[in-house]
Amino acid sequence: MAEISILTEDDLRRCVALDADAVSCMEDCFRALAGGTVVMPPILSLAIAEHNGEVDVKTAYIPGLDSFAIKMSPGFFDNPRLGLPSVNGLMVLFSARTGLVEALLLDNGFLTDLRTAAAGAVAARWLSREDTRSVAVIGAGVQAKLQLQALTLVRPVERATVWARDTDKAAQYAALIREDLSLDVSTAPSVHDAVQGVDLIVTTTPSDAPLLQAADLSPGQHITAMGSDTEHKNEIATDVFSAASYFCDRLTQVRVLGELHHAIDAGVCTPDEVYPELGQVIVGEVRGRCASDEITLCDLTGTGAQDTAIATLARRRAHDAGLGSLFNSG
Amino acid sequence: MAEISILTEDDLRRCVALDADAVSCMEDCFRALAGGTVVMPPILSLAIAEHNGEVDVKTAYIPGLDSFAIKMSPGFFDNPRLGLPSVNGLMVLFSARTGLVEALLLDNGFLTDLRTAAAGAVAARWLSREDTRSVAVIGAGVQAKLQLQALTLVRPVERATVWARDTDKAAQYAALIREDLSLDVSTAPSVHDAVQGVDLIVTTTPSDAPLLQAADLSPGQHITAMGSDTEHKNEIATDVFSAASYFCDRLTQVRVLGELHHAIDAGVCTPDEVYPELGQVIVGEVRGRCASDEITLCDLTGTGAQDTAIATLARRRAHDAGLGSLFNSG
Repeated sequence: MAEISILTEDDLRRCVALDADAVSCMEDCFRALAGGTVVMPPILSLAIAEHNGEVDVKTAYIPGLDSFAIKMSPGFFDNPRLGLPSVNGLMVLFSARTGLVEALLLDNGFLTDLRTAAAGAVAARWLSREDTRSVAVIGAGVQAKLQLQALTLVRPVERATVWARDTDKAAQYAALIREDLSLDVSTAPSVHDAVQGVDLIVTTTPSDAPLLQAADLSPGQHITAMGSDTEHKNEIATDVFSAASYFCDRLTQVRVLGELHHAIDAGVCTPDEVYPELGQVIVGEVRGRCASDEITLCDLTGTGAQDTAIATLARRRAHDAGLGSLFNSG
Repeated sequence: MAEISILTEDDLRRCVALDADAVSCMEDCFRALAGGTVVMPPILSLAIAEHNGEVDVKTAYIPGLDSFAIKMSPGFFDNPRLGLPSVNGLMVLFSARTGLVEALLLDNGFLTDLRTAAAGAVAARWLSREDTRSVAVIGAGVQAKLQLQALTLVRPVERATVWARDTDKAAQYAALIREDLSLDVSTAPSVHDAVQGVDLIVTTTPSDAPLLQAADLSPGQHITAMGSDTEHKNEIATDVFSAASYFCDRLTQVRVLGELHHAIDAGVCTPDEVYPELGQVIVGEVRGRCASDEITLCDLTGTGAQDTAIATLARRRAHDAGLGSLFNSG
């Protein structure tokens, strides 16, 4: 009976992009999160150790949006050996009024990439100095590129340095950025070298040991740490918590999955300490950066609310553009 | 690139049914659960109070199966007013080796109905008396019919009594059972009357207050309580816990969602008390019924492992029968 819209990665790439609208969409999402009415259960996580895989399921209901998404993100880390990508996934969009399936978004992780990068732009807009011209990117993967691209939407970025464990990948990344984003970019021999004198640092690795220490930092820098989205990942040394003002996407989540989780484990922070969320800064409930020499740190773990927001946007855009196939579910 | 198989409810109804194979499939599933290697995270639950809705997400990895399912079950209880069914849902089947999406099962809850009923048959096979001839059914919904039908697959059922809050529905149910299952069936004016002298009782309501008390029971009866799958549902009075030997589908889950949860709240059972799971009875780790006059109670809340098992069976059957549409996810 019901008609379901099926959108492929191709359809989605044709109607949503990393642009000002995507950043606004995420900003609205963080604003909603601060309102206290978003319903966002803890992430469901299934580990398949036997095949070096895991699947995370995220969801949230945002009052005011007509639909909500359930996102399934499998990561199977032996896939490259089989010639397959590690990360895949899809989202299912349901009507928030009836629970009926409205759309299947077979995005292979594209929408997650998009909303994660857009959230980096939101963090920069509200926490970094307005005159942010130089960026250090730690990591050389998909997000390393998208985060930098997102930053150019909100700050007058002119140049970047990059560090990655694999120096070949760092060099390839630099070449790609020069070509695609026309930025002045250089590779650095260490994290320490990469971050010297830059205005903004974004960490985008799956590291499970800290890469960035307090001693690497200089006054006025903003750090967006977006690599840690599972318990074992960790990019930021615990001594950074004393050097920087800490912000996060969702407090209940970073306590378990984010950089904060490691600081709590180390006894540098306590489990019940309250830290501000990005949304609270946006709605003016909490002050963001208070001085140009303050160091700020934003810990982004990725929320189900962002998935609902981007999926709702993507479905509307696809509909308006006449993209996708209608499937009669019988 | 990847080809995804899309199976509608219609396709699925043409290739899987409530039969001996479905019961075996569930029996294998409970056996696997007893083995200790199944990975089954807690249920993710999203409540949308504003629209009287909730969505549960269940999943599990069963070693030995090539795929695993993630099931999304929305229940929106104002839907009947809009002429829509309350319960819907779909399952996504992933490769357990690569995490790639293999199939979308747009079953609208059909597979859940099937596996829930088949689990009732498994509970009866291992816990009820072999000479179970009479059944009391509490409730008159979809499961009221399917549970009775499932019981006929494993026990020589000849007659049934039914009680439902709505007497018209009970009468309609009795007529349906007479026609479809050719059983001798009568309606009862109360739960107490319905269960007098029967061999097996199955409770299938969404009640949030106990319907069955210890005083209603007689020696040798088996009770399958399958209505409670959320915290607030409750069919079995806590005094039944003293009268009956208690079994469950998954201990960690019934402590939070099942009838046991209410017994714990009432102080009749303790949260750390260990009760046997159905799977442990099947593998011979724990004794089931020890005497013909023993009263047994099996608390079924529905597990993600059952969803993975039935989805894997359904996809194989659909493939063999050439059913479904292939969709190129691009």
